[in-house]
Amino acid sequence: MNKIIFKAFLAAFLLLGNVANLKAQEISAMQAPQVVSPEVGPDNAVTFRVLSETANSVTINGSWMGFGKTLPLTKGEQGVWSITIEPLASSMYHYNFFVDGVAAIDPTNPHALRDGTRYASLLMVPGEGAELFQMNDTPHGNMSQVWYDSPSLDAYRRMYVYTPPGYESGQESYPVLYLLHGGGGDEDAWTSLGRANLILDNLIAQGKAKPMIIVMTNGNAWQTSTLRQKPGLPPITRESYVQFQGQFEKSLVEDVIPFIEKHYRVKANKDSRAIAGLSMGGGHTITASITYPGTFGYIGVFSSGIFNQNENMDEIEKKFLALKASGVSKYWVACGVDDFVMESNKRLLDVLKKTNFEHEYYENEGGHTWANWREYLSLFAPMLF
Amino acid sequence: MNKIIFKAFLAAFLLLGNVANLKAQEISAMQAPQVVSPEVGPDNAVTFRVLSETANSVTINGSWMGFGKTLPLTKGEQGVWSITIEPLASSMYHYNFFVDGVAAIDPTNPHALRDGTRYASLLMVPGEGAELFQMNDTPHGNMSQVWYDSPSLDAYRRMYVYTPPGYESGQESYPVLYLLHGGGGDEDAWTSLGRANLILDNLIAQGKAKPMIIVMTNGNAWQTSTLRQKPGLPPITRESYVQFQGQFEKSLVEDVIPFIEKHYRVKANKDSRAIAGLSMGGGHTITASITYPGTFGYIGVFSSGIFNQNENMDEIEKKFLALKASGVSKYWVACGVDDFVMESNKRLLDVLKKTNFEHEYYENEGGHTWANWREYLSLFAPMLF
Repeated sequence: MNKIIFKAFLAAFLLLGNVANLKAQEISAMQAPQVVSPEVGPDNAVTFRVLSETANSVTINGSWMGFGKTLPLTKGEQGVWSITIEPLASSMYHYNFFVDGVAAIDPTNPHALRDGTRYASLLMVPGEGAELFQMNDTPHGNMSQVWYDSPSLDAYRRMYVYTPPGYESGQESYPVLYLLHGGGGDEDAWTSLGRANLILDNLIAQGKAKPMIIVMTNGNAWQTSTLRQKPGLPPITRESYVQFQGQFEKSLVEDVIPFIEKHYRVKANKDSRAIAGLSMGGGHTITASITYPGTFGYIGVFSSGIFNQNENMDEIEKKFLALKASGVSKYWVACGVDDFVMESNKRLLDVLKKTNFEHEYYENEGGHTWANWREYLSLFAPMLF
Repeated sequence: MNKIIFKAFLAAFLLLGNVANLKAQEISAMQAPQVVSPEVGPDNAVTFRVLSETANSVTINGSWMGFGKTLPLTKGEQGVWSITIEPLASSMYHYNFFVDGVAAIDPTNPHALRDGTRYASLLMVPGEGAELFQMNDTPHGNMSQVWYDSPSLDAYRRMYVYTPPGYESGQESYPVLYLLHGGGGDEDAWTSLGRANLILDNLIAQGKAKPMIIVMTNGNAWQTSTLRQKPGLPPITRESYVQFQGQFEKSLVEDVIPFIEKHYRVKANKDSRAIAGLSMGGGHTITASITYPGTFGYIGVFSSGIFNQNENMDEIEKKFLALKASGVSKYWVACGVDDFVMESNKRLLDVLKKTNFEHEYYENEGGHTWANWREYLSLFAPMLF
């Protein structure tokens, strides 16, 4: 009888319903889109299409192009605008259309991701370079949105916690990576744009990284959680950053770490604690590690540095010497050659050299992009624990 | 020194960087948008704005208008298109612009939600009717994406699990609500569009619902997880539905429930198990409950029914009598007067009456909408356990 009820239900659902009354969601799930976009060709050339009979101009910006650049789509038959771009390397990208100047996600692409306060459409160009960022047929770790009290910030805050495959069904204790986002991001960034959970799923499945817990906090000390959950927040200002300076690092070490070590099966010692962050999160990483020496045994600074030319370098060097004395297994620095933070990144490297702080430096192409930060995580995670 | 590094970092971040090289995310987080949209007036009239100097037409569709209807925006000074609509009741809504016919989320509204394969912009009109769907200053339950093996479907699948405030720090065992989405949705729907986690946070904080675990599975038996996580899946077809009929209910009862009862602190008995679902998920609820009598003590059928006019009603009635004999504390049926499933909903009510199955029926305005399903959950959850 299950069968009969279900078939009957389907008949009504698919055929007999008053279409004007159907939920848009259900219609969109049932109807083939009018155009196909994006379409990846056998040579990895990509065609984007969007339907508009009346638009005056349609352009596209993609993460492979750099910020602010656009390419025009051409209007063809029946109002379908399209562009085929040169083959892209196998990887993960995102893009937006601009229809008469209005930013739009691709209406026929169901895969989108949040980029700070904007949404963009996801493009996966399959192949070797994309496999680490895809959901493959491997065991997957669980992802949780976890609320915790932060006495340091006098706030009730949200973080994302990745537990590796096997955590829930086993008894083992795990090391922890504290992974920090950059300016304009929030606790959602490392999984939406960064795909940290899928990168670790894949690295662990390949035996390239040890199973670990990843804790992705919200690094904006004035926020309790991502924008998406709380409409009506005032926009971020420079004053917000300055007002809360240094407080996030305190809350990370004094509130978050004790919470994690109380509620999860973790190895609670320096050599089982790593910290890494990008851009502003790299700044947080530098500050947290030198302010609390002996806390983290593994440190990763992605696309960041120490910036102020007039810094009291003597004092900084003392702090780095104390950190070094506490015993750091790995200090890893990474930056793209075109990154606008390169100068300050070099100042960090200078301090490390001057203090004879054993470290590794990885420099690659590109600038201040998630493509680089996904790569840095892919390289850093296998060095841990 | 934290201060110095951080301030220096900020200076570089905000002022010294090469803007063309900055991440778009960071720029968008720092810049005031060029227009404000949506803007809710003191009387709850709402103004929507979008900037385009060259568009020929801009329209809007909102969830308060019904599917397929649009209203035109008017072009004003400096290319800002706008419309002010009549005051809306305090509640949660979503909407899309159409720029020369191309669906777009509101580019200046950072709050969007996924509606099946589409994205829409979120509009909260504050006030009493919206409070239950907002993130208020209450304790929050955690939300987890949890992977599990489903031998019944021969698949490794993902579900969302809400654990109520206090679960992680306590020792108590909790009752469980299994909450099912409709056609075109997936395991993300009840939190993205349905806000089930926030509704429960708020009801629990008000003392109106008992703390409970909510398990939100993916009701599409051919899927392992939401579209967003796995690009390249073929579109859903009628064949997909028919091929897998009845199998989801089997996997729910034989795979999901044992998994939950093994991995969470739950009260593992009929009187601590509830099931509810909307539309297709209402069909799943009916089928699962009559196929496995004695499993669920609380049953909620939202906007659904038994559809086939040629159904073998004798057999169905026998099943309902067996379910009744197993002991059901609450059978709750809800439907909107304008819903296209009303006829089949009435057939469900007929079966309940004919079998003298004690039940409650709630009929309200509107049709097959998430506004109704959020309301139904708000009414159903306080009846449980």
